[in-house]
Amino acid sequence: MSVQVPDAFARTHDLLEAGMRDAVQRLSPGIRRVVAYHLGWLDLEGNPVESPSGKFVRPALSFVCAEAVGAYAEVALPGAVAVELVHDFSLLHDDVMDRDTERRHRPTAWTLFGEGEAILAGDALLALAQERLIDPPTHERLKAAAALSEATAEMITGQSEDLAFERRGDVVLAECVAMLEHKTAGLLACACRLGAILGRGSDEQIEALGGFGRALGIAFQMVDDVLGIWGRPEVTGKQACSDLRQRKKTMPVVAAIEADGPSAEQLLSLLQSDGEMTEEDIALAAKLVEDNGGRDRTLEEAERALAGALRFLDQIDTPVDARRDLEAIAGFITARDF
Amino acid sequence: MSVQVPDAFARTHDLLEAGMRDAVQRLSPGIRRVVAYHLGWLDLEGNPVESPSGKFVRPALSFVCAEAVGAYAEVALPGAVAVELVHDFSLLHDDVMDRDTERRHRPTAWTLFGEGEAILAGDALLALAQERLIDPPTHERLKAAAALSEATAEMITGQSEDLAFERRGDVVLAECVAMLEHKTAGLLACACRLGAILGRGSDEQIEALGGFGRALGIAFQMVDDVLGIWGRPEVTGKQACSDLRQRKKTMPVVAAIEADGPSAEQLLSLLQSDGEMTEEDIALAAKLVEDNGGRDRTLEEAERALAGALRFLDQIDTPVDARRDLEAIAGFITARDF
Repeated sequence: MSVQVPDAFARTHDLLEAGMRDAVQRLSPGIRRVVAYHLGWLDLEGNPVESPSGKFVRPALSFVCAEAVGAYAEVALPGAVAVELVHDFSLLHDDVMDRDTERRHRPTAWTLFGEGEAILAGDALLALAQERLIDPPTHERLKAAAALSEATAEMITGQSEDLAFERRGDVVLAECVAMLEHKTAGLLACACRLGAILGRGSDEQIEALGGFGRALGIAFQMVDDVLGIWGRPEVTGKQACSDLRQRKKTMPVVAAIEADGPSAEQLLSLLQSDGEMTEEDIALAAKLVEDNGGRDRTLEEAERALAGALRFLDQIDTPVDARRDLEAIAGFITARDF
Repeated sequence: MSVQVPDAFARTHDLLEAGMRDAVQRLSPGIRRVVAYHLGWLDLEGNPVESPSGKFVRPALSFVCAEAVGAYAEVALPGAVAVELVHDFSLLHDDVMDRDTERRHRPTAWTLFGEGEAILAGDALLALAQERLIDPPTHERLKAAAALSEATAEMITGQSEDLAFERRGDVVLAECVAMLEHKTAGLLACACRLGAILGRGSDEQIEALGGFGRALGIAFQMVDDVLGIWGRPEVTGKQACSDLRQRKKTMPVVAAIEADGPSAEQLLSLLQSDGEMTEEDIALAAKLVEDNGGRDRTLEEAERALAGALRFLDQIDTPVDARRDLEAIAGFITARDF
C-alpha cells in the first residue's frame, strides 16, 4: 500500500479552500478570528500563515465520489465545505471537552482564546454548515442536508459514548467499535454520500459509496487509535500517548483489557486510578496494551475494515480514475506513518 | 399592562410539549438524559418531574403568529419546536461559558453532568432543530430553515460580543444594544417569522411580525438585564446580581458608565478589578448602577422598544384574538415581577 499523498488531495485543495474562505467570510469578526486560527490560516496575532496545513480527507472523499458517479468534482463543493465545517466544529468542541492542548502541531484554540470563544466558534461552524448547504434549496442539496444532519447527530452520539467510556471500567470491544463507528465513520460515510448525492448518483451508487466511507472510517479511526498511543508527536501533532494520559478507552486499550489475565487487570487498575498518571504509569500502560495484543488486534481489525471498504467499490461501476483515487485515499489514511 | 400569564401560553403548552418530546426521543440515551434534565422533565436520578417549568415564550410567539396570518396554530409546530430547541441549545452552552450554576431554580446541567456532556447536549439540540425543520422539505419548511439558520448565526454573534464585552472597559451603549439585539431579539424575531412562514403569510405579514418580534426581543432583553441585577432569586431562578458577579457589561451597567462622573468611574474600576468580587463590592456596584440612572434608562428604552413592537402590528390586518394574544405576550414578558 502506498503512503504517498494521493493526487486527489492536491487536485481538490484549492477548490475546497476557496469554498471554505467564502463560507468563513460570513462569520462575525470575533468568531472568524478563532476559526481562522483553528483552520491554520492565521496565527495568534492575526497574520496570515504561509502554508496552512490540513489534508481535507472528508472533502477529498466528497469530490472523488462525485467523480465516481460520473459528475465533475466541482458539483460536490457545497457538500465538501459543509462536511469539513462539521468536522472542524467537532474538533473545536472535542479539544475543549478532552482538554487537549495541541492540534496540528499548534496550541488548541481554547488554550489561546478561552473556552467560551472556542465553544462559540464550533457552534458557529455547525450552524454555518447547514445554512450553506441548503442555499439554494435544490433537490440534491436538501437530500445532502438531511444526510449531513443525520451524520452530525451520529457523531455527537459517538462523542458522548467516548466521554462515558472514560468513566466506565467494563467497556467491551463491541461497544468500542460501535463508538468509533459513530464518532468517525458516520461523517466519512456522509462525505462520500454527499459527493454521490450532489453528483446525482443513483441510490445504489450513493449506498455503495456510503458503505465504502463507513468501513473506511472504521479502519481510519482504528489506525488513529493506534497513533494516539504509539504515534510520534512530530507526526501526529499531539502529545505522545495523549489518549492514555486521558484514560481514553480506545480500541487498543479495550482489546488489551478483554484479553484478560493478570497484566490486563494491572492495566485496568492503572487506568481506573485517581489523580494524574506519571510518565512511568503511561509508559507502563502502553507496554501492557502492547503485550496484551491491543495494538496488533486493532491493526488487524483495521485491515479487515479496509478490505471491506474496497469491496463496496466492486458493487458499482466507477470511472477508472475515480476508483484509483478512492483506493489511494483509503490506502493513505489507513497507512499513516507511525 | 397586565402581568397575568397570557392564555396563549396555556393554550399552546400541550401542543409544544408533545412536539418537544417527540423530537427529544430521537436523541441517544446518554444525551437525552442531560436534555431531559435541562428541560425540567427528569430529575438527576432520572425520575419524571411532576410539573415541568418553562413558559415557552418563543413557541407561543410562533403559534400566535401563525394565527395572526389566518392559519391554525398547529401548522407552526415544527417551527415552534425548532426555535425552542435552538433556545435550549444556547442555554446549555451559555451556562457552561458563563459558569452559571443555577437556571430555572435548579443546578445547571454542566454542574451535574460535567461540562463535556452539557456541550454535547447543546450540540445535539442544534443539530436536531435543523434536522426536524427540513423534514419533510416543503417550500415553507425550507424558508423557515433558512430563517432559523440566520437567526442562530446572529445569536452566536451576540453571545460572542457579550463574552468580548466582559474583557473590555470601553463598551458604549450603542454596541450594547446591538449585542442584545443579536443575542436575543434575532431569535424572537425568528420565532414570529417561523409562525408566519409556516402559516403561509404574505411577505408583508412575515416582515411585520418579524419586526414585532425583534423590537419585542430588545425590550425583553433589556428587562432581563434589569432582572439580572435587581431580580429576586426566587423569581429569576438565578443567584442575586448574577450578571454583576460575572462583570457582565449589560445595558444598565453600560448606561451607568456612560452617564460619566466620579461614581461611574468607581463602578468601572470595580468591574475591571481582578479576583472575585465580594458581596459588598457587588452591592456597591448595583447601587452605583442605580444611582447613575442605569436602571431607569434601561427600563425607559425597554418601554420605547415595546411601543415600537406594538406599532408593527398596526401595519397588518390580524384577527382580533391573535392581536390580543400578541399584545398579552408582549406585555407579560416585558413586565416581569421584580
